Amino acid sequence: MANMFPFSSADRQTKEAANLHDLIEPLTDHSEGQLFLNETFKIIMEEVLRKGTDVKEKVCEWKEPEELTLLLDLELRATGEPQHKLLQRVKDVAKYSIKTSHPRFFNQQFAGVDYHSLAGRFLTESLNTNLFTYEVAPVFVLMETEVLRGLRQLVGWTEGDGIFCPGGSTSNMYAMNLARYRLFPDVKSQGLWGLPRLTIFTSPESHYSVKKGAAYLGIGMDNVILVKVDDGGRMRPDDLDEKIKLAKSQGSVPFLVSCTSGTTVQGAFDPLDRIADVCEKHELWMHVDAAWGGSVLFSKQHRHLMKGVDRYLIYRPGRCILQHEEGYKIWSYREDRLLFIVCVCVCVRVRVHVCVTRANSVAWNPHKMLVAGLQCSALLLKDTTNLLKQCHSANATYLFQQDKFYDVNLDVGDKSVQCSRKVDCLKLWLMWKAVGSDGLEERVDKAFIHVRYLVEQMKKREGFHLLGEPEFVNVCFWYIPPSLRGKEGTADYQDRLAKVAPVIKERMMKQGTMMVGYQPLGNRVNFFRVIVFSPLVSQRDLDFFLNEIERLGNDL
Amino acid sequence: MANMFPFSSADRQTKEAANLHDLIEPLTDHSEGQLFLNETFKIIMEEVLRKGTDVKEKVCEWKEPEELTLLLDLELRATGEPQHKLLQRVKDVAKYSIKTSHPRFFNQQFAGVDYHSLAGRFLTESLNTNLFTYEVAPVFVLMETEVLRGLRQLVGWTEGDGIFCPGGSTSNMYAMNLARYRLFPDVKSQGLWGLPRLTIFTSPESHYSVKKGAAYLGIGMDNVILVKVDDGGRMRPDDLDEKIKLAKSQGSVPFLVSCTSGTTVQGAFDPLDRIADVCEKHELWMHVDAAWGGSVLFSKQHRHLMKGVDRYLIYRPGRCILQHEEGYKIWSYREDRLLFIVCVCVCVRVRVHVCVTRANSVAWNPHKMLVAGLQCSALLLKDTTNLLKQCHSANATYLFQQDKFYDVNLDVGDKSVQCSRKVDCLKLWLMWKAVGSDGLEERVDKAFIHVRYLVEQMKKREGFHLLGEPEFVNVCFWYIPPSLRGKEGTADYQDRLAKVAPVIKERMMKQGTMMVGYQPLGNRVNFFRVIVFSPLVSQRDLDFFLNEIERLGNDL
Repeated sequence: MANMFPFSSADRQTKEAANLHDLIEPLTDHSEGQLFLNETFKIIMEEVLRKGTDVKEKVCEWKEPEELTLLLDLELRATGEPQHKLLQRVKDVAKYSIKTSHPRFFNQQFAGVDYHSLAGRFLTESLNTNLFTYEVAPVFVLMETEVLRGLRQLVGWTEGDGIFCPGGSTSNMYAMNLARYRLFPDVKSQGLWGLPRLTIFTSPESHYSVKKGAAYLGIGMDNVILVKVDDGGRMRPDDLDEKIKLAKSQGSVPFLVSCTSGTTVQGAFDPLDRIADVCEKHELWMHVDAAWGGSVLFSKQHRHLMKGVDRYLIYRPGRCILQHEEGYKIWSYREDRLLFIVCVCVCVRVRVHVCVTRANSVAWNPHKMLVAGLQCSALLLKDTTNLLKQCHSANATYLFQQDKFYDVNLDVGDKSVQCSRKVDCLKLWLMWKAVGSDGLEERVDKAFIHVRYLVEQMKKREGFHLLGEPEFVNVCFWYIPPSLRGKEGTADYQDRLAKVAPVIKERMMKQGTMMVGYQPLGNRVNFFRVIVFSPLVSQRDLDFFLNEIERLGNDL
Repeated sequence: MANMFPFSSADRQTKEAANLHDLIEPLTDHSEGQLFLNETFKIIMEEVLRKGTDVKEKVCEWKEPEELTLLLDLELRATGEPQHKLLQRVKDVAKYSIKTSHPRFFNQQFAGVDYHSLAGRFLTESLNTNLFTYEVAPVFVLMETEVLRGLRQLVGWTEGDGIFCPGGSTSNMYAMNLARYRLFPDVKSQGLWGLPRLTIFTSPESHYSVKKGAAYLGIGMDNVILVKVDDGGRMRPDDLDEKIKLAKSQGSVPFLVSCTSGTTVQGAFDPLDRIADVCEKHELWMHVDAAWGGSVLFSKQHRHLMKGVDRYLIYRPGRCILQHEEGYKIWSYREDRLLFIVCVCVCVRVRVHVCVTRANSVAWNPHKMLVAGLQCSALLLKDTTNLLKQCHSANATYLFQQDKFYDVNLDVGDKSVQCSRKVDCLKLWLMWKAVGSDGLEERVDKAFIHVRYLVEQMKKREGFHLLGEPEFVNVCFWYIPPSLRGKEGTADYQDRLAKVAPVIKERMMKQGTMMVGYQPLGNRVNFFRVIVFSPLVSQRDLDFFLNEIERLGNDL
């Protein structure tokens, strides 16, 4: 791009008049455009879907950023380019991008490809609509409702609400906002001022979005209280109970427990059933971040990992929150005296919020283990009181007119804090229709089988040291190169071990043979986390993985 | 879907053992999958792109929700379906969806199709990666940087920062969070407790996301102070100044002015230059919500509408905020005495935040007028201090390892409050490369020409009554049916006029001939808002529009 334009308007009227003849024809050339799309489709089929999933091809074509910048010629200019040059650009983008569908991409919690889902995504992009009103998205308003119902049924809820969000972080933040609003509905209009300090409870191995959300929603990261975990990385209900009591004694108001089903690094499942007891005791909103692990609900074999998710909290009658000039107080009362108490409170100008909440929430990302494609993130709610809409609505009259000729409850957009909202249900719906719940179950079960195989092989090989028995499809391990074996007691062992994974990672990236992530965790130095669930993976890819780690790290 | 599964784990070990032979082959059948994708692509080309943009075909195939639910057979079941049935489903989804690319879809701020952008979107979906680290998105990390630079250059900033967000609402909320964090960095860890009440200023015609954001971020909708507008719907700088003074005198701390370039209904542009004066005077963060209007920056003729956007606020030395036990105080000081003051403050345990911010922000959605496809929303920042990352980061060690072999500043994910983040830059980049800045300028200019034509035609016809001269590409008008003409003074005139637009809308939807929205605004009853910018529109579509309104409303 040459130069920015000055903010002058000197010649604009003359130019406008001269251009009036341009009116007759539209700017778009359909035949040229469709030809380009056709050619791009062919490139996608060949470069991304055929080569990109072929184990004989590289997972990545590593380039240093400076070199890649030159190769891609990213600069945006005043004049356009011919079609053949643009098609070369399409090829270049494909060439230098990571092949996340490749069977040897073990790097993230997304991988693989599902062709039905991908077809749904192409269709979504082509139809280019927004999921906010029935009038512009009739098919998708109904479809989203049905998909959410299907997911809720797997949780064990026959009724409820929900919404697709742009990622699991947003789902977690919505849960936070809903829990806060339920307890203190005035927060929507008045903000947090005048409210007692609110606290959230989660484990240190939960997703970082809990902290991000607390910061974003004005609650503050320090008000996220970290509950101890057991050796496997699962939240300890006894410590949760202690921490809640402590927080209360320090004057804060606990309002949310964010449990995790499938932690990011270790794949641990918090014991939901026992946590639900604690939540019930303290009358806290129980949110389950099952962004990663939620897909086990499809499997009869493995859904026990989320036992307790179907429980939900009833704010029993007999409790209310008194709001008076000095602050808030949670207070118990006998139900038969409720009317009397309310009358007294009205007289003495104390506001009463009677807690009758029946709700908790689950965040579940089918874009992860189910291979629905980025992004597909559902927030599921037990709530039947339209809490989502009450909490988030702004009733914009230009979009959500109340005098429409159809049922305006179908205009679901005001449930979101977004305005434009992508259609994320079609890809999952089409994939689900294609393979059925049984097919998705098979996918989940197979991932567990692959993990078991991988773990057994690791145990047979020298040099692979597991952090622990995997509960899910994350396998965390150290690779101990020959030079470090038997030296566990030496002074610099941990320091040297910490440097192994980054070097192996660098080598595999530069050779492009596969991808797997590493990280430290607490006092445990850098270890690999291999994620195995792609439906494209076979036994030979797992054998390759182990051989490749050995090959790359043998001399370290 | 038949039934949910119980949370039992009785037979799982036996089953796992039996399934071990499944390991050898992957689940995915590439040839069948690619065949399906091929067939879907053909359906998209025919149903969505050819028929869907043909003026001889309908814009919508209206069905009542009950009927549509039956037609689509949405239910999700245990078993999968054969390919031919799935392809019929793809056709059905296309058939009953709104053709938002149709030249006679005037309903929203998105419309039309750009084939290069669509090709970029297909490629994005196929490559299925997340924009959070260079290692999984090398091409897109560099590309996003370049696209943001290109957009910033049009604003008039040679340096700065930015990020693509899932929609303009999120961009507006980010601006709010950044402005708040800049002023009170402790808010990230400690939340809003202990801070003075914060206030935001915007016009009543600004986008509803400003209020939604205030609620979401814990600030509260009541702390969004609405500034008066002039007859055209533009914020009045004099009233802004008054309202800020009033808010201060009432003890709140104003921290953000959210101006609008292109309001949703009227398409008004707030006078940025004069608002910048007020922001500078009061040292407030000036955010410009140009989600809709930002694209005028491509046009030499029309960018004057945003004059002043390139100004940015410098928190001049000479001011600081004192935080002490009783609250906050904004205080002026002489620069040469800063060190002395700081020393004194340290001694008396008062915390000093010296304001040296150089920042404001612009939200701009190329998915609207530039036809980049949903979603493509940029937040642009003048800031060069890495504020975005400081404000939003959580430093997750599993993703943003600091011992990587490449420059970890390329791992841009921690700038976002999302974790998974879609790639929204490729579609805009490819389209921009294809037509150049000149081509995008032409698109913007042509939209203005179309609007001028439409307005002139309306003035020639009886029954079309404009709300005012359009400043942008929103044309707001009442259609006065013959039975109401000349009866402006009668008692029930407004009531009867209010009912006209909804009936015409119902008729056009049910006949499927075109789509346009209506709404009330303040004390003005229901009027149409026709949005004209799609590059597929020609003069005959505009003539059709006027004829069709007359045809549908003539008997009312």
